[in-house]
Amino acid sequence: MNTKKYRVEESGKLKLSAYKTDETGKDSEAEALARCEQRQSKLAALQERLYAEGKQSLLIVLQARDAGGKDGTVKHVLFGLNPQGVVVTSFKAPTPTELAHDFLWRVHPHTPAAGMMAVFNRSHYEDVLVTRVHGLIGEKETEARYEHIRAFEALLSSRGTRIVKLYLHVSKNEQKERLQERLDDPEKTWKFNVADLKERDLWDDYTLAYQDAMRATSSKKAPWYVIPADHKWFRNDLIGQILEETLEDMDPQFPEPDFDPAKVEIR
Amino acid sequence: MNTKKYRVEESGKLKLSAYKTDETGKDSEAEALARCEQRQSKLAALQERLYAEGKQSLLIVLQARDAGGKDGTVKHVLFGLNPQGVVVTSFKAPTPTELAHDFLWRVHPHTPAAGMMAVFNRSHYEDVLVTRVHGLIGEKETEARYEHIRAFEALLSSRGTRIVKLYLHVSKNEQKERLQERLDDPEKTWKFNVADLKERDLWDDYTLAYQDAMRATSSKKAPWYVIPADHKWFRNDLIGQILEETLEDMDPQFPEPDFDPAKVEIR
Repeated sequence: MNTKKYRVEESGKLKLSAYKTDETGKDSEAEALARCEQRQSKLAALQERLYAEGKQSLLIVLQARDAGGKDGTVKHVLFGLNPQGVVVTSFKAPTPTELAHDFLWRVHPHTPAAGMMAVFNRSHYEDVLVTRVHGLIGEKETEARYEHIRAFEALLSSRGTRIVKLYLHVSKNEQKERLQERLDDPEKTWKFNVADLKERDLWDDYTLAYQDAMRATSSKKAPWYVIPADHKWFRNDLIGQILEETLEDMDPQFPEPDFDPAKVEIR
Repeated sequence: MNTKKYRVEESGKLKLSAYKTDETGKDSEAEALARCEQRQSKLAALQERLYAEGKQSLLIVLQARDAGGKDGTVKHVLFGLNPQGVVVTSFKAPTPTELAHDFLWRVHPHTPAAGMMAVFNRSHYEDVLVTRVHGLIGEKETEARYEHIRAFEALLSSRGTRIVKLYLHVSKNEQKERLQERLDDPEKTWKFNVADLKERDLWDDYTLAYQDAMRATSSKKAPWYVIPADHKWFRNDLIGQILEETLEDMDPQFPEPDFDPAKVEIR
């Protein structure tokens, strides 16, 4: 699978409508599942090296519409990793205290320490999406925030943090089916939020806001990927591959000891 | 397996020497591994209910000597859980800022929110162990800290946090073998810390300090367990069972919706 195809170029020419939501690639579901299972031990080994090395870190930013598959992605793609080396932060609607600060204030403390992986389930990007769609900020403030985000991500990058940003791309119909499933299955109803229906009515506004934000903030060190996400198995396989390639490119190494292990005697 | 046998009674009569470090129970290693694998999906299902319910939380406190198996326990026992619902915090030697506060100050922010599981890899108990063994605090201060810990854990308990405290019990010889393995295996040498050898020389002092701390702080709502931990597979199986029983006893439930799902229409 060629992951480059899904990476948003820096040129700012992204057209979301050019990406299919229901793509499945060339392989069958069974093949993709087998590959995901094999990949699990590779990712765990790379994670251990990252942790042992203690120099670089990986930040995964997950954005999607409601029922777009963020929780499922966290569950499946991180399955089998050592929880000691991964911190997942879910960003909800900001509190009054958070709103009394700049929009990156609540995000910064949760960026990954050296050796760690962090996942943002929603992120600072909400502040150029939901705020914009609801008219809480105008074009000028939106542009200013893009600039703040670029600078912020450059800061993280300067300290060894690799950033991978994933937009889970689902169709309006797929969202409907998933929301309906939450209503129908008593074990999923707790995930249903009546307010989500209002956001659904703003579907096209969100499409433009996502497209615009990704155009403005995709960079070599912090690329956006558009992940076709109607089919969960394809989504998981593609994201798994992106993470594997990213970690391999980071190439973490077990550190050399600063003493001679052969000379240590344990009594 | 009867987990009660490993639970430290409130009576304060614990004798650590009465616990074997190399216990293996009645079942074979193969049987224990099979049971651990089966248990994984049960634990994941219980975790999902805990998260969905959003009322109770679970705090797992892990204490052990160096190379006692804390990291391995985190990796194996939490394997397969949803990282979104688990936060692991490793407490290192306190920083100057942390030392400028009471000893629970740095711990409190990491206690689990409702719906979450938290693991403390080392914990506030270090402040009645390493400090005591090295003579940084005397008997009076030690007793005072036990009282502070009991009150702190009662506070967490009052807010719905169940606390399970695990002491991984290994023999001095098993520690030697594990430390030697870290020296011999280049992929493990990064875990070796020369300073650990000094702590090893204080073996018996630590035994008494652990015994005393567990006697003073084991309670019905925050029990200590002595986990025979020379055999990792036995350790993992026993801890897995304790967690399963604890979560079953907490009995989290999917919440009832405060609306009628049948009346919601998605356009």
